[in-house]
Amino acid sequence: MKIQYIENIRHGLPVDSVYLLQSKRLQGFRGKAGKFLLVVLGDRTGSVEARIWENGEELYDKFNPGDLVKISADTGEFKGKLQLNISSINIYRGKDVDWSAFLPVSPKDKKEMLKSMDSIIMSINNPDLAALLNLFFSDSEWLNKYSTAPAAKKHHQAYLGGLLEHSLNVAQACQQIARVYTQINRDLLLTGAILHDVGKIDEYKYERMIDMSDQGRLLGHIIIGIQMVDRAIEALPGFSDNLRLKLLHMIASHHGEYEWQSPKRPKFLEAYLLHQLDLLDARVDAFTRAAEDRVDSDEAWSDWVKDLERYIYKK
Amino acid sequence: MKIQYIENIRHGLPVDSVYLLQSKRLQGFRGKAGKFLLVVLGDRTGSVEARIWENGEELYDKFNPGDLVKISADTGEFKGKLQLNISSINIYRGKDVDWSAFLPVSPKDKKEMLKSMDSIIMSINNPDLAALLNLFFSDSEWLNKYSTAPAAKKHHQAYLGGLLEHSLNVAQACQQIARVYTQINRDLLLTGAILHDVGKIDEYKYERMIDMSDQGRLLGHIIIGIQMVDRAIEALPGFSDNLRLKLLHMIASHHGEYEWQSPKRPKFLEAYLLHQLDLLDARVDAFTRAAEDRVDSDEAWSDWVKDLERYIYKK
Amino acid sequence: MKIQYIENIRHGLPVDSVYLLQSKRLQGFRGKAGKFLLVVLGDRTGSVEARIWENGEELYDKFNPGDLVKISADTGEFKGKLQLNISSINIYRGKDVDWSAFLPVSPKDKKEMLKSMDSIIMSINNPDLAALLNLFFSDSEWLNKYSTAPAAKKHHQAYLGGLLEHSLNVAQACQQIARVYTQINRDLLLTGAILHDVGKIDEYKYERMIDMSDQGRLLGHIIIGIQMVDRAIEALPGFSDNLRLKLLHMIASHHGEYEWQSPKRPKFLEAYLLHQLDLLDARVDAFTRAAEDRVDSDEAWSDWVKDLERYIYKK
Amino acid sequence: MKIQYIENIRHGLPVDSVYLLQSKRLQGFRGKAGKFLLVVLGDRTGSVEARIWENGEELYDKFNPGDLVKISADTGEFKGKLQLNISSINIYRGKDVDWSAFLPVSPKDKKEMLKSMDSIIMSINNPDLAALLNLFFSDSEWLNKYSTAPAAKKHHQAYLGGLLEHSLNVAQACQQIARVYTQINRDLLLTGAILHDVGKIDEYKYERMIDMSDQGRLLGHIIIGIQMVDRAIEALPGFSDNLRLKLLHMIASHHGEYEWQSPKRPKFLEAYLLHQLDLLDARVDAFTRAAEDRVDSDEAWSDWVKDLERYIYKK
Amino acid sequence: MKIQYIENIRHGLPVDSVYLLQSKRLQGFRGKAGKFLLVVLGDRTGSVEARIWENGEELYDKFNPGDLVKISADTGEFKGKLQLNISSINIYRGKDVDWSAFLPVSPKDKKEMLKSMDSIIMSINNPDLAALLNLFFSDSEWLNKYSTAPAAKKHHQAYLGGLLEHSLNVAQACQQIARVYTQINRDLLLTGAILHDVGKIDEYKYERMIDMSDQGRLLGHIIIGIQMVDRAIEALPGFSDNLRLKLLHMIASHHGEYEWQSPKRPKFLEAYLLHQLDLLDARVDAFTRAAEDRVDSDEAWSDWVKDLERYIYKK
Amino acid sequence: MKIQYIENIRHGLPVDSVYLLQSKRLQGFRGKAGKFLLVVLGDRTGSVEARIWENGEELYDKFNPGDLVKISADTGEFKGKLQLNISSINIYRGKDVDWSAFLPVSPKDKKEMLKSMDSIIMSINNPDLAALLNLFFSDSEWLNKYSTAPAAKKHHQAYLGGLLEHSLNVAQACQQIARVYTQINRDLLLTGAILHDVGKIDEYKYERMIDMSDQGRLLGHIIIGIQMVDRAIEALPGFSDNLRLKLLHMIASHHGEYEWQSPKRPKFLEAYLLHQLDLLDARVDAFTRAAEDRVDSDEAWSDWVKDLERYIYKK
Repeated sequence: MKIQYIENIRHGLPVDSVYLLQSKRLQGFRGKAGKFLLVVLGDRTGSVEARIWENGEELYDKFNPGDLVKISADTGEFKGKLQLNISSINIYRGKDVDWSAFLPVSPKDKKEMLKSMDSIIMSINNPDLAALLNLFFSDSEWLNKYSTAPAAKKHHQAYLGGLLEHSLNVAQACQQIARVYTQINRDLLLTGAILHDVGKIDEYKYERMIDMSDQGRLLGHIIIGIQMVDRAIEALPGFSDNLRLKLLHMIASHHGEYEWQSPKRPKFLEAYLLHQLDLLDARVDAFTRAAEDRVDSDEAWSDWVKDLERYIYKK
Repeated sequence: MKIQYIENIRHGLPVDSVYLLQSKRLQGFRGKAGKFLLVVLGDRTGSVEARIWENGEELYDKFNPGDLVKISADTGEFKGKLQLNISSINIYRGKDVDWSAFLPVSPKDKKEMLKSMDSIIMSINNPDLAALLNLFFSDSEWLNKYSTAPAAKKHHQAYLGGLLEHSLNVAQACQQIARVYTQINRDLLLTGAILHDVGKIDEYKYERMIDMSDQGRLLGHIIIGIQMVDRAIEALPGFSDNLRLKLLHMIASHHGEYEWQSPKRPKFLEAYLLHQLDLLDARVDAFTRAAEDRVDSDEAWSDWVKDLERYIYKK
Repeated sequence: MKIQYIENIRHGLPVDSVYLLQSKRLQGFRGKAGKFLLVVLGDRTGSVEARIWENGEELYDKFNPGDLVKISADTGEFKGKLQLNISSINIYRGKDVDWSAFLPVSPKDKKEMLKSMDSIIMSINNPDLAALLNLFFSDSEWLNKYSTAPAAKKHHQAYLGGLLEHSLNVAQACQQIARVYTQINRDLLLTGAILHDVGKIDEYKYERMIDMSDQGRLLGHIIIGIQMVDRAIEALPGFSDNLRLKLLHMIASHHGEYEWQSPKRPKFLEAYLLHQLDLLDARVDAFTRAAEDRVDSDEAWSDWVKDLERYIYKK
Repeated sequence: MKIQYIENIRHGLPVDSVYLLQSKRLQGFRGKAGKFLLVVLGDRTGSVEARIWENGEELYDKFNPGDLVKISADTGEFKGKLQLNISSINIYRGKDVDWSAFLPVSPKDKKEMLKSMDSIIMSINNPDLAALLNLFFSDSEWLNKYSTAPAAKKHHQAYLGGLLEHSLNVAQACQQIARVYTQINRDLLLTGAILHDVGKIDEYKYERMIDMSDQGRLLGHIIIGIQMVDRAIEALPGFSDNLRLKLLHMIASHHGEYEWQSPKRPKFLEAYLLHQLDLLDARVDAFTRAAEDRVDSDEAWSDWVKDLERYIYKK
Repeated sequence: MKIQYIENIRHGLPVDSVYLLQSKRLQGFRGKAGKFLLVVLGDRTGSVEARIWENGEELYDKFNPGDLVKISADTGEFKGKLQLNISSINIYRGKDVDWSAFLPVSPKDKKEMLKSMDSIIMSINNPDLAALLNLFFSDSEWLNKYSTAPAAKKHHQAYLGGLLEHSLNVAQACQQIARVYTQINRDLLLTGAILHDVGKIDEYKYERMIDMSDQGRLLGHIIIGIQMVDRAIEALPGFSDNLRLKLLHMIASHHGEYEWQSPKRPKFLEAYLLHQLDLLDARVDAFTRAAEDRVDSDEAWSDWVKDLERYIYKK
Repeated sequence: MKIQYIENIRHGLPVDSVYLLQSKRLQGFRGKAGKFLLVVLGDRTGSVEARIWENGEELYDKFNPGDLVKISADTGEFKGKLQLNISSINIYRGKDVDWSAFLPVSPKDKKEMLKSMDSIIMSINNPDLAALLNLFFSDSEWLNKYSTAPAAKKHHQAYLGGLLEHSLNVAQACQQIARVYTQINRDLLLTGAILHDVGKIDEYKYERMIDMSDQGRLLGHIIIGIQMVDRAIEALPGFSDNLRLKLLHMIASHHGEYEWQSPKRPKFLEAYLLHQLDLLDARVDAFTRAAEDRVDSDEAWSDWVKDLERYIYKK
């Protein structure tokens, strides 16, 4: 399957490629009867509008958002934006799909991230916590999901690999902070950092589209994550009761406040630090993206940043 | 084990009975060296202060709050309040303890309540939900806890049997409301009503003292309840996935708002109604207790009611 | 007066009917001088855009929103939406106007609702409260308004007959709940339920358009309702002072919280229940409408529901 | 009836006077059986504890808070505070009671205040508003209440005459501000200022004790005031509908925000200014009292001022 | 430099004038290749869209928002709005620019306002405060900024001269209120009123465009104002320490609440009054503008007023 | 000056030492006329009540809180607490006072902390920021205050040396976090960390008693700190304008939110991180103190921790 990435499409050149159908709509012709089909096609580098001028109404029912389609088209421009005129379109039925070509992906290398994560896990001395982490990371199906899931749908690290990237960042920040405050139970804090968002594996769907699953919307990653970790602990006979309770509490409380959907607020130092450094990573990501946003511009101030509810000073 | 209930103790008469030791404190004599031991004794009808004038310092380490003690004492009065002078005190080691004699108990009859609950369960037609409820209610150990646990430590129905009383009230209110709004999925709503607070079985300790357990304080009854119901569903092969998700969501969202510790807000009608009628039962209880508070007084207004943040008009 | 309901207009067929003029606007021709008149016409089944291509500027001042107009038109389509081209338009001056043809109306039958309401009123034993309700319901002018007024402009039951429908729902819910909590003063609660929103009779205008009156915006239905009920009570010599105060308080406090525009919060059980079941009826309506919204769609989730600040799960 | 004001009682001198009984309590003797009666007596200059050593239990039921009692006593001191030992006590049944001797009274002269108010009323040109004010101020029973009622139970101007003092202050501030902002409808603003708190006449009881009435607690002075002014307007045929609505709205909205118990927020300039200058007078009173509190002390900072939620700088 | 004010442009007449370029955008032709340049031109009377049909893409980089441009154009209309077709455009490089021709200006006369301000300053008796005000007002560069700066970018008095107009209003309101509450330190209050917003001189840029400066966005007028006043006081040897602290506190606290960006809340009466009358002037301005908004309309209600979060009643 | 530290006083042994007088009060004898003087004496190890039985009323005016007094006393016990009976008391007038003996002091060594701070300062490469820090740290008077001031009166690090300890912690945490997020301007972040609370030098009084100064209460450490840093920058010609603005902004915004008294919220990454790690250090301190509170107790839960609004789990 060859993809002509959308960021490389140029005005005037023909396009032959597979894309992800993101949306579809019928629209009436101006000045004559009938309707044409307007679709948005996407890959991991962006998205583009395309029109199918003939048989739009028949074709409408043949494709759905989330389908991969193989198209041929020529390129034009409308109101300053590139636009495709499709001459042929078919569902792509190849088996060799690499979804990461169609969805945004973490800018960081997955293998490097897993290697860094491994070295953190190796540094954990507590046998119960080490066993728990090994149970997860030696399960290749789980690990595939853990390293593919996004960290969010819209906000920080909203791309494939985002969960891994975010969890690693939080674990590294915990590692560093544990050097300043030596009263911290480092093993517990790091285990919490690695597993705090593990429920996102099932909170999101991330084949074809990054979206929340029904389970994600009805239960959320805190409850899903607690169930996932608790079942793993059940498989480890002799796991300390107190450690189990503390670890589950860290997942339950990592949003820090009730209004941020934590059913409990942090009740000991490691739970509090996990919350604080989880938040910090999300905010660092938001500040950094906002400051980079128009890095070529000489404007001193960013556009309004919704997640941070402020403008960012970039000078 | 014979108990002389505290509400029946009279000035001038001797006391010989078993009580629950609620607290202990050493206090210096006024005007001479040394200390005496001051304890508070309780049973389900109230509590009373008692003094041990001799060997207080030695005795201090022999008893702890939560112990049952057998005492002999004579009765006096101090600042208008009854007070005991203990002449002998020992740990009670009998095996025949009926804890409901020492802790406050629901004014409603447990058997009657269970009978009413059964008739509601019998009226549920959906086979999955009926099977789930039968699984729970046919487990005598679980049922014993469900009908013994309190509904709270301080607020509504804070006594043994409170969970059952509250769950039954909510189920009955749901039954009635379902007659007005016929679009409701009655079976789902009633099952949610019966099971929404089931996590309180482990959120509280209710032997010797009604208090929150460590698990209760670190995870809370919402998470504990979800785990309990989900494990029961796992034991019922073929249980509808969608019903499972909806029922777990109803437990997750029954506090209604994030700031009331629900990690999700109600996303469908039955979940919303369960939240609303759960709240209503707690508030009806608070209004009713406040209005009864000094039912003999001719005051038009109650004292300040903390749970309701208001005074209640009683005329 | 014959009306061709808007939901029945079909592309290509002529239209001859009376409609309510909902809005008007002059718009410049594209590519030539001058302006045409763009109006929106409505009846209880929906609304439609219509254009008057000639003499638009002269006609503009002859019609105002709220007028009934008799039009002749042919039908076309623009951007997939039906659109009328008007050839003749005049103010409709017939005397036989049934406004319920032009404004949305409760889906429930008015007579049935009044019958149900009567049977509730008949069940009230307290002579003062029974007399008060009879005074209102035997006044045919008042009854006409009570059974015509909407319950809201935008939110729940925002149609003619909405006040009656909502008041009946609340009264029925109160009736059922009173069976569970027998300590309730049922007569007071039901009377409060029937009269709590009575001020909406004057808070809204509901001839020609459903909108708030100046009085409604400056005083609100709580103050208007208190004045209305208090004047009725003045006409009933010997009415209990305490009942009067409690009933007026129930109106004053039925929004439950200051921030929902109640100048007092409920101070006794019946006032609290009225607030709670009033809120519940509005929310049940919102959940039910949201779940029905696109009942043909196979989407599991509704669109964003503004009144509930959430998406609704429909599976 | 001769009163020996409490501020004039001196250690060692006998007391023979009428006071208001503010509270009563039985207290056990230390070191012997039986109880004595402990009462608090008050007048407008302060309060003092008094003990009745004999027959306390019998006497307890003969007196109630709010009674005037004639006592004979000698004076002692306990823990640095003056204290009376009562030898004789009887209900005072004289008809000549001047309650202002027993309750705190405005430091300002009532006649002077009424004169200032009159001159403001004289300056109002609008005939409807002038007629309305004259209707009230020519009713001597009403005027007596208006010039006797307190402005609050605890907060600003919590003494007899407080309503008049506060209303006059607000009217004077409105007068001054109307000189700066000449777009103001001065007559409307001044009428609103004079009448905005008129409902306090019935919201409080101010014979024997300053306290809220049942009506005050269940309806509040906003609703009571609207009813009072609306009935007066009904007695004035031809009163402008629009002025009536605006004046009633000014009463309804004068607390400014829903959370301060206004069912409407100010919708035009005069309503907004009334709210703002009403608030300002209450706060000026609080700041001034706090700064005077220990005017002899050389402390730079006041004690915590609860109404203002801050400490006040006094240098 | 001759300006043809935008409010005087008429359809069909040629335009030759200098304007401020407010924005620029390239837009594709409909139906042919290439782009034209669309600009918005403004002066203090309004703004107008203008098109440059030829060489748009080349011209785009020659002009920036904030430039003065001299243009020749003819006038047309599009969708009912006036529109210019520019035939020649050049940067205006004259030295004689009176910016007040291009930016909105206070409707009040600057000289009159300064005269009124002077008479207030003359009435201040405290020698330290009088010296401080004289130091500022005798500095002509400072005075020029003080009488040119706006009071805001968007909200109240958002035009040149707005700071002076607002400061004068607040000072006059303080003057009047000080007549009612004679305990006020009038000199301190008036000095605070005149200087409270002095930091706005540097918080805003008001040449070419009214906008916040980087300093304004990063520090704000409270901190800038404190630094400005404190440096002036340093130049006055012997200035009372306590007066200095109180005056700086009044600037620090004049927004009244933390959430309105005051780092301190008012701690004495004059600071509180300054806050309250500052707020009042801003709100009077908002109410007055809202009521005037469509003064010719017969609508009883204004459009939604964002600053006041309400509709305004205009009858 | 020899001090017998309070933690070392033992029942029955005489005391001869200098202490800080923390409070004084006259109290009446029980059972005879006259008053004795009750004082609280303190040093850095604790406080103790002492009584002066003779001439109390005369002595009362000779001593004030904050005075050092030399006393002789014998020791007794009252209600289980140690208590001194003073036989002689005089103001201590020695010149050799080491206040750190009388006020609580950081448990960390001042020289060690300054050394750690120096090594951080040495690592800063930016010449402007390095020069600024050197200017401060080479000023021995300033450095003495910076290393003596407390970080708070009641909350975190509320002891002498607390400012230094807290600033060092925050700087170290910033150092570590800068290793994880390499996009950070490390020099700016560290300089901000070292100087963010510098205004506390004048916000507090910390001779004799730790309390807020008038300046501290009226302006606060944010404004005082900005003035202090800005004056230092003025002494450094050529200091970057942008760095100055960013550093002052970091001080202005380091409380993060308006409601925490920051007049600006952080507008770039370094300002945000400073806020977050400042907060984190205060909270780590609070969690750690709470968990240590009764380190010998076997209770799983701490007492209520007011600063954190929760109980802490200690197992």
